[in-house]
Amino acid sequence: MLKGACMFGQSGGPSSVINSSAAGVFIEALEQDCITEVYGAAHGIRGILHEEFYDISKESKEELLLLKNTPSSAMGSVRYKLKDASVDDTDYKRLLEVFKKYNVRYFFYNGGNDSMDTCNKISKFMANSGWECKVIGVPKTIDNDLFGTDHCPGYASAAKYVATTTMEVKLDASVYDTPMITVIEVMGRNAGWLTAASKLASYKGLGPDLIYLPEVAFDIDKFVKDVDAVMKKNANKCLVCVSEGIKNAEGTLVAELFAENLAKDSFGHAQLGGVGAALANICKEKFGCKTRAIEFSLMQRCGAHLASKVDVEEAFNAGRESVKVAVSGETDKMVIFERSYDKDGNYVCNYKAMPLELAANTEKTVPAEWIINNGTDVSDEFVKYALPLIQGDCKAPLEDGLPRFAKLKKVFVEKK
Amino acid sequence: MLKGACMFGQSGGPSSVINSSAAGVFIEALEQDCITEVYGAAHGIRGILHEEFYDISKESKEELLLLKNTPSSAMGSVRYKLKDASVDDTDYKRLLEVFKKYNVRYFFYNGGNDSMDTCNKISKFMANSGWECKVIGVPKTIDNDLFGTDHCPGYASAAKYVATTTMEVKLDASVYDTPMITVIEVMGRNAGWLTAASKLASYKGLGPDLIYLPEVAFDIDKFVKDVDAVMKKNANKCLVCVSEGIKNAEGTLVAELFAENLAKDSFGHAQLGGVGAALANICKEKFGCKTRAIEFSLMQRCGAHLASKVDVEEAFNAGRESVKVAVSGETDKMVIFERSYDKDGNYVCNYKAMPLELAANTEKTVPAEWIINNGTDVSDEFVKYALPLIQGDCKAPLEDGLPRFAKLKKVFVEKK
Repeated sequence: MLKGACMFGQSGGPSSVINSSAAGVFIEALEQDCITEVYGAAHGIRGILHEEFYDISKESKEELLLLKNTPSSAMGSVRYKLKDASVDDTDYKRLLEVFKKYNVRYFFYNGGNDSMDTCNKISKFMANSGWECKVIGVPKTIDNDLFGTDHCPGYASAAKYVATTTMEVKLDASVYDTPMITVIEVMGRNAGWLTAASKLASYKGLGPDLIYLPEVAFDIDKFVKDVDAVMKKNANKCLVCVSEGIKNAEGTLVAELFAENLAKDSFGHAQLGGVGAALANICKEKFGCKTRAIEFSLMQRCGAHLASKVDVEEAFNAGRESVKVAVSGETDKMVIFERSYDKDGNYVCNYKAMPLELAANTEKTVPAEWIINNGTDVSDEFVKYALPLIQGDCKAPLEDGLPRFAKLKKVFVEKK
Repeated sequence: MLKGACMFGQSGGPSSVINSSAAGVFIEALEQDCITEVYGAAHGIRGILHEEFYDISKESKEELLLLKNTPSSAMGSVRYKLKDASVDDTDYKRLLEVFKKYNVRYFFYNGGNDSMDTCNKISKFMANSGWECKVIGVPKTIDNDLFGTDHCPGYASAAKYVATTTMEVKLDASVYDTPMITVIEVMGRNAGWLTAASKLASYKGLGPDLIYLPEVAFDIDKFVKDVDAVMKKNANKCLVCVSEGIKNAEGTLVAELFAENLAKDSFGHAQLGGVGAALANICKEKFGCKTRAIEFSLMQRCGAHLASKVDVEEAFNAGRESVKVAVSGETDKMVIFERSYDKDGNYVCNYKAMPLELAANTEKTVPAEWIINNGTDVSDEFVKYALPLIQGDCKAPLEDGLPRFAKLKKVFVEKK
């Protein structure tokens, strides 16, 4: 069995459960005899380039387990795009140098599409350079857009946040007997999975009247007509959930259409408000009633107090599984989830591994046939898909009525 | 004992626990022999004027108890300001007519300052008109600004939302090793209690660097200097919590200063973004780094999934207590909370009643001596005050992984 150190890094936007995967990797790696050291790279790939990584053996198992319920990326994250090695291999040579210096034989990278691209490039370079190193991607993204896996760790907790909070907002926003239009903006640039999760609120009778995903070209005039129809049949109340990434027929982000114009305000400030605010403004002008734009903002991806138990456990298992896969001798893979149902019809998650390059270059969007009602709703197939993923609660213990998140010592490994 | 029907109404902005008070009123009233009918007014005072109220005896006790964990105002709310009876007594005469027609001898009104003003006016009119009716105010406001009570039902759950979510956002917003300024906007027009709750996150080591309350005049140049100082000592990261209600030295809302200018954008739209977005824009311009404005928006007042158990129970008890007080013969009062500590130093809430007019016309703001560090922080006295209130979790049971909120039948009473 290949003996050496393992390096783990996190990359891209954090989630409620990315640290649960970190806990899985760390706890499994610490138990493996062939893994001599367990390192956590500070700020992903940048930490490796700068030889800044933490010695995970200095942490208590108790704190590592608290990572399961601690949102955000405990190791720190980064958005750093590696050039193609054929164009500029400086970074790759440096990574190889560091891997050799610290005898890194296991490398785990935890992130979404871009991170899997990074992981894939590193995997190929290490293989070509002859340095034996098992490279495994650990999936993570609230966007749920990684190819080849039934779903991604992080998605379900964000979906649960979106569904639960939409239900609560629906109750709040319909409390007065006066006309009211509420527009909720949900994350998701190219894939509408997270915005679609608002449909779970509808399934419980407290959902949006209109749902717009980036998979369908958005037309502002049609939107106004859609809202008008809802207002007429629905006692002058309308709740809209819209993805931040909706685009017009030409493929331009609707948010950018407005940002350009709004940039001309008298202060000369760039406008921060997104597409939800812009659409609420349009409604205010067209319908003359009270409107409210709500952004779920960072809360939807860091709301660990509302995490799905299924998601927390699957993310943890994905971390453990990645180490097991690597130790068994596999490399150049990403851990994926396959769904099955047991004889009682209960959802079961099976852990597999697939070639990294498949994950690196493909985005998975919501199937066109699941988007219904002229692009304003999603079907029951979506509900059937998503509902098993948001089951159960799992959050940090309370201390003084507030979450007790993991407090890591973060002891830097001495530079060699 | 005075025998007759009881009427309950909700008014003003909803909260996570206003329905817990409704549950308390309903369940206690249904148990009282002297109360012949239990009515819930649709949309507060307006429902009474229009003779639109629900027959609460048609609801199951199980669903009424689920109200404890159902956010928003289940009866519907209203913002309707009664004129002074001496100026125009039309509405009062109509209320009296309805009260007589349905033999309403107990009236409970659940809301904040404005609702207590309404309740007070009705109380005085009924007394002067000779119609014996026990009138009791049931306090509710996330703003915590009602005079005469240690704190208000609804505040603690909103405070718990603000503290917990600030902790989560702090972890998320500090994940990259690049400069970042995050501005969180919290509700509260004149009183900073809710924004101050972000200090509880600091107490757990994950709070804002700067806190601005409406109690202190806000100066934009000073704000920029404050942020600059934090950025220099804090690795170019700064988290700000600001009340929507901050005002400059002239008393003008800072949000309005910007709204006026931003109204001139090329689309001619009124800007929705509040003071948080405006301050984030200023930071972007001054510091040239990534900034993010976050509004806790409706979520802070409807996030029942994160309610404080103390708050849920106190709100319920406030409802029950208001009925007991009325049945005992008292009138023209509002139920209040008095704080004490038992011999082990544990917080105890005692229920009392005080004259309605005291609550109707006074706003309670954060004591000046609790606002420290040149208006950018609150003291440990605040933490000591607020911490006992946010203890414990109490939320709706899960069904399909989502909250099972109360589903009332809402059977209208037949008009007489």
